[in-house]
Amino acid sequence: MAYASLTKSELSDIAAQLTSEYNAWKEKNLSLNMARGKPSAAQLDLALGVLETLKARYEFANSKGNDVRNYGIWDGLPEMKQIFSDMIGIPPQQIILGNNSSLLIMFDVISRGYSHGFNGCKPWAKQDQLKFLCPVPGYDRHFAVTEYFGFEMINIPMSETGPDMDLVEKLVAEDESIKGIWCVPKYSNPTGITYSDETVRRFASLRPAAKDFKIMWDNAYCVHDLTDTPDHLLDIYDECMANGTEDMLMIFASTSKISFPGAGVACVATSDRNIVDLKKHFMTQTIGPDKMNQLRHVLFLHDIHGVRDLMKGHRAILEPKFKLCQRMLKEQLGDLEIAAWNEPNGGYFISVDVMDGCAKRVVQLCKEAGVILTDAGATYPYGNDPHDSNIRLAPSFPPLEELEQAMEVFCTAIKLAAAEKLLSA
Amino acid sequence: MAYASLTKSELSDIAAQLTSEYNAWKEKNLSLNMARGKPSAAQLDLALGVLETLKARYEFANSKGNDVRNYGIWDGLPEMKQIFSDMIGIPPQQIILGNNSSLLIMFDVISRGYSHGFNGCKPWAKQDQLKFLCPVPGYDRHFAVTEYFGFEMINIPMSETGPDMDLVEKLVAEDESIKGIWCVPKYSNPTGITYSDETVRRFASLRPAAKDFKIMWDNAYCVHDLTDTPDHLLDIYDECMANGTEDMLMIFASTSKISFPGAGVACVATSDRNIVDLKKHFMTQTIGPDKMNQLRHVLFLHDIHGVRDLMKGHRAILEPKFKLCQRMLKEQLGDLEIAAWNEPNGGYFISVDVMDGCAKRVVQLCKEAGVILTDAGATYPYGNDPHDSNIRLAPSFPPLEELEQAMEVFCTAIKLAAAEKLLSA
Repeated sequence: MAYASLTKSELSDIAAQLTSEYNAWKEKNLSLNMARGKPSAAQLDLALGVLETLKARYEFANSKGNDVRNYGIWDGLPEMKQIFSDMIGIPPQQIILGNNSSLLIMFDVISRGYSHGFNGCKPWAKQDQLKFLCPVPGYDRHFAVTEYFGFEMINIPMSETGPDMDLVEKLVAEDESIKGIWCVPKYSNPTGITYSDETVRRFASLRPAAKDFKIMWDNAYCVHDLTDTPDHLLDIYDECMANGTEDMLMIFASTSKISFPGAGVACVATSDRNIVDLKKHFMTQTIGPDKMNQLRHVLFLHDIHGVRDLMKGHRAILEPKFKLCQRMLKEQLGDLEIAAWNEPNGGYFISVDVMDGCAKRVVQLCKEAGVILTDAGATYPYGNDPHDSNIRLAPSFPPLEELEQAMEVFCTAIKLAAAEKLLSA
Repeated sequence: MAYASLTKSELSDIAAQLTSEYNAWKEKNLSLNMARGKPSAAQLDLALGVLETLKARYEFANSKGNDVRNYGIWDGLPEMKQIFSDMIGIPPQQIILGNNSSLLIMFDVISRGYSHGFNGCKPWAKQDQLKFLCPVPGYDRHFAVTEYFGFEMINIPMSETGPDMDLVEKLVAEDESIKGIWCVPKYSNPTGITYSDETVRRFASLRPAAKDFKIMWDNAYCVHDLTDTPDHLLDIYDECMANGTEDMLMIFASTSKISFPGAGVACVATSDRNIVDLKKHFMTQTIGPDKMNQLRHVLFLHDIHGVRDLMKGHRAILEPKFKLCQRMLKEQLGDLEIAAWNEPNGGYFISVDVMDGCAKRVVQLCKEAGVILTDAGATYPYGNDPHDSNIRLAPSFPPLEELEQAMEVFCTAIKLAAAEKLLSA
């Protein structure tokens, strides 16, 4: 029964009962962490074969005979590019491989715009006003990059089909100081939704006032399905090519959640013209990325089929965790009308909206009971959730038994915070 | 006998003879490369043990129990910091580890100054004039970084004791737009000299007009000795601490020429205050460097003694190559007074000064005979050697037999170019 329809007296009884339950949890001195989208140790074990690949001397040469241990090949191994190409749908020759972090390449793309500009425009450092569109809730580390470079960040509400495209189209058409937008188009962080075909087509046909506008297309979860009915993301590169807008597009991907978060391979993929710009930047910056790690990945993954097989192993570990969270949220909060959440077909997160003004309180209650969640507000630019309602759950890291305890605490905290709020109203 | 003291007729005979020798080399269709300071395959084989280290599950934890495969530890493994600390003489807690390239970290330090400034000063992007001091001959990739960010580069002559410190002190004291200086203090690239104690002390007591002046101390060859009488570099960090100038100092090192050029570990080391600035930058940029590769290196190298043992293996391969070059230069050019060169106790290069106006011609002659050298001029900012006389030899990559052929061609080309010049005078 919905909390809002209870009397104050009924609510008081419930709050007392919840407080007692909560205190019992507190006494257990738990130490659980659901803060970051970290794969579990069991998932990392799936890719240990990566380490077995580089054994004999002849294997240090890639298919062209280059010794991958030495300097050179600034843009990475062609064989690894092919694997990414099949993952994200852009030709291998338009892919540049980096080291272990796609975030780092995103930072470099923004930094390159800041110091040198894009598409013949003045460097962003020399422009007066800089703004960036941030679909919310979204990924805190994206927002941190544009905040670092002094962009004013503008919230764009997310719906089931992606960012509010009416608003995006209107803003980019009228404001030349808007230089880009952050996107996690598949299994979005944290809402778990995948952009609809229409959303992708509208992105590809954007006509921004700023000639140096960039769509930061972070396809972090492109092969990270968790159900038998995975989402399908339309190929934005093809759509952009059809519209002649491919210079707007910067696509990012990595094996962080395929092999190892700390030691995978990351890439950027973009138009021919952008590759020329980025080449100058990357070739000034380094003599080349870690190609031994790329070769390790090539020898272990082989091709896109190897990637898909490996992802089945990840699914086998992750799916029960997501199902547990869904079941507990439904059982404990299903009819109380104090929280809403998504049921993603993949990715790493569940996005929970609690009652307005309650997210910080829930996170605090959990923390005091030994359950660390992502900070309330983290899914918004400047850490400022105007409704104080969104909480990102990251179920991947804890083992199932710990996850169950953490979710018990989480659901209790949501109920307690809601009862407190209604009582004080 | 010195070419300059010969008659034109004697020179003509010599030139004819040299042309005939040169043409004979050309007919061999050689394909040799002495352009870059790349370790040879035999050197890379020395570190293959790096790949054998990560085997059992328990080894993925470092000494603090962190799973190095996962996200986290933005500044790298403490164990690897300790190894660098013992190599470059700065406390481990003031070291930040990056990925595989120290050049990349140097780029990031300059980029950070450009976008955010240092020591509370305006970002370099917002300052009107930017200049950087470049000891010459020096390292082309250093110069490329400051050129990319629009610095005007000022040549500082190198002597046997390091950069001309009278000039450095004068310029930095009077010109606030001078923001830093590139240094390779030990076995300098390419002159092979090591800065004298006095030079290091004068660096540590610089009083630049610019509060955001940085000494880019690229200690790339800190353990790369090639003789029984290695050079000793005074510890600049201690000297800076004694002078209270440690915020000027950015020290860089890597295992590029210890383990693998393409897959080593790199670091920056600096003052406490600078670490705070850089931390904000690096933590925005990435969730952490490749710690598996760091752990691989820790398990293989163990400590500074492991590093020194490994470097003995490098010396065993490199020393004969350097000796061959020295012997051939002396035998073929020793009494002709048309070239001068250094005899370094370590590092990767021999710097040869041919007659003024002849370097480009020598490199071209070599190229046409199938021997690729570093471009003439590359050791100067903007590729502009005002005397057209400096050529950097990189003897490390070719096997000894090939090196001997390449040096034959090189010496012939130097003599031919000199004879041509004297004849046309």
